[in-house]
Amino acid sequence: MTETVISSATREVVIGFDRPFVMIGERINPTGRKLLAEEMKAGDFSRVEADAIAQVEAGAHMLDVNAGIPLADEPALLAKAIQLVQGVTDVPLAIDSSIIEALQAGIEVYEGKPLINSVTGEDEVLERVLPLVAKHGAAVVAISNDETGISEDPDVRFEVAKKIVHRAADFGIPASDVVVDPLVMPIGAMGTAGRQVFALLRRLKEELHVNTTCGASNVSFGLPNRHAITGTFLSMAMSNGMTSAIMNPLHTEVKQAIAAADVLAGNDKDCAAWIMANRDPNAAAGARGRRAGGRRRRP
Amino acid sequence: MTETVISSATREVVIGFDRPFVMIGERINPTGRKLLAEEMKAGDFSRVEADAIAQVEAGAHMLDVNAGIPLADEPALLAKAIQLVQGVTDVPLAIDSSIIEALQAGIEVYEGKPLINSVTGEDEVLERVLPLVAKHGAAVVAISNDETGISEDPDVRFEVAKKIVHRAADFGIPASDVVVDPLVMPIGAMGTAGRQVFALLRRLKEELHVNTTCGASNVSFGLPNRHAITGTFLSMAMSNGMTSAIMNPLHTEVKQAIAAADVLAGNDKDCAAWIMANRDPNAAAGARGRRAGGRRRRP
Repeated sequence: MTETVISSATREVVIGFDRPFVMIGERINPTGRKLLAEEMKAGDFSRVEADAIAQVEAGAHMLDVNAGIPLADEPALLAKAIQLVQGVTDVPLAIDSSIIEALQAGIEVYEGKPLINSVTGEDEVLERVLPLVAKHGAAVVAISNDETGISEDPDVRFEVAKKIVHRAADFGIPASDVVVDPLVMPIGAMGTAGRQVFALLRRLKEELHVNTTCGASNVSFGLPNRHAITGTFLSMAMSNGMTSAIMNPLHTEVKQAIAAADVLAGNDKDCAAWIMANRDPNAAAGARGRRAGGRRRRP
Repeated sequence: MTETVISSATREVVIGFDRPFVMIGERINPTGRKLLAEEMKAGDFSRVEADAIAQVEAGAHMLDVNAGIPLADEPALLAKAIQLVQGVTDVPLAIDSSIIEALQAGIEVYEGKPLINSVTGEDEVLERVLPLVAKHGAAVVAISNDETGISEDPDVRFEVAKKIVHRAADFGIPASDVVVDPLVMPIGAMGTAGRQVFALLRRLKEELHVNTTCGASNVSFGLPNRHAITGTFLSMAMSNGMTSAIMNPLHTEVKQAIAAADVLAGNDKDCAAWIMANRDPNAAAGARGRRAGGRRRRP
């Protein structure tokens, strides 16, 4: 089956159907984080570095890095953020911007093979982003909307995804380096949002054979007990073929639902990661001597 | 789509694809409950009644009633248990036994249209149970194993389910009154158990158009943090077409995963049940005056 390899200078992550789900930490994003935005704009990246470390310690396999701050020099900020994050962690990164110059600045300083986030099905965007992805041998997130916006019809969104995959092939980018984002709407605003995405994920896996990702938090926007909705959404999405997500690894309910879904999909061999993450700390202390806090990270 | 109607004297429950998932309380079952078994055998049904009330208060839409105690008069015990449970709650029941005489004794005292649990694909069992189901106009759980045991091949299990549905039709029992149990193995013992069941559920929905159920707790047998595995399993199963389960409604993690999956499947209109179950009790107290404990049951 399709495998998408993303790497840093020293570490590889593989996104694929018969592998554990890939968690991409969402926190390094100034959108809606006023303090972080102000700090980054003023050249203070200490919170960026702290968020990078905290997310990796919480189990993130990759990190998304975004520097979208109004009226700021986004290309310079994004390049700086990427360099600093690569200095404090060795997980591969998703370089996240809607501005082509920022993507370019990010790619140029990146060490390894990044995931470029993102390209849409809009012709102008395709013709500007895909050459950059091809030139640097990167992988790319393909968002399934185009000039006409986001269709509520999963079949229309499938066609947009297919168009991007075909256009990418024209530039020499294999389908295995295109990770489709089916677009997840808030379920509180549109009751059919879940069904649409599940149907689309199934077609993307079975017909287009591509890996998939999404911004997971969006699904629970506006609802109480959000993390339970987001976690359950991800387990259902995984059951329909989703292979990665941009999410918050600090939310333990979300992380636990993903770990349980890996077990149930048969992608956690001998349930080893589950058993390790859920072992009784007292039993472990008794058996192996007392330790100052157990490591609870998934391998 | 297929709708299975089960009823008590005063209440109806409908199992169906575009409806909230039906939770069937599993607790009234002496298997593995030594104290309950001893009490029932001695004619003390106080724990049966208490378990019935507690499960309905926790949100069970139906209750499974089993009186399988070695060396006891199971038909008399099952009939007694059903009468007592129907005296303290008005939810419809699943009459659960592997002994035909016990099923018969249970049906004869039952008020309403019960779910008979169960028939298998074994010829001898089919020929004894189906006439009973037909005579009383009941619905029946069809377990997808036969004389050869439980196949690990979901396609073989599908054929067994199909055979039961066809044989039921010969007796005048419509497919809508057959609720197939695809059989869920412990994921800790067999890593492919989840994939098998999800594939089978999809075929049962799309090709055989039948409702489905299972004994949910079995999937997490032997693993730590069981309820998280069981809850995530059910949300994934729902995403593949499962419409009911025999489970423990007192396990809040399991119940919450089901409620979230109902939201994400678009079967909780306007997320009303979710919002009601997860509302902030302090906010409610402020807005509507202080109350002695909020009702947290789903409607």
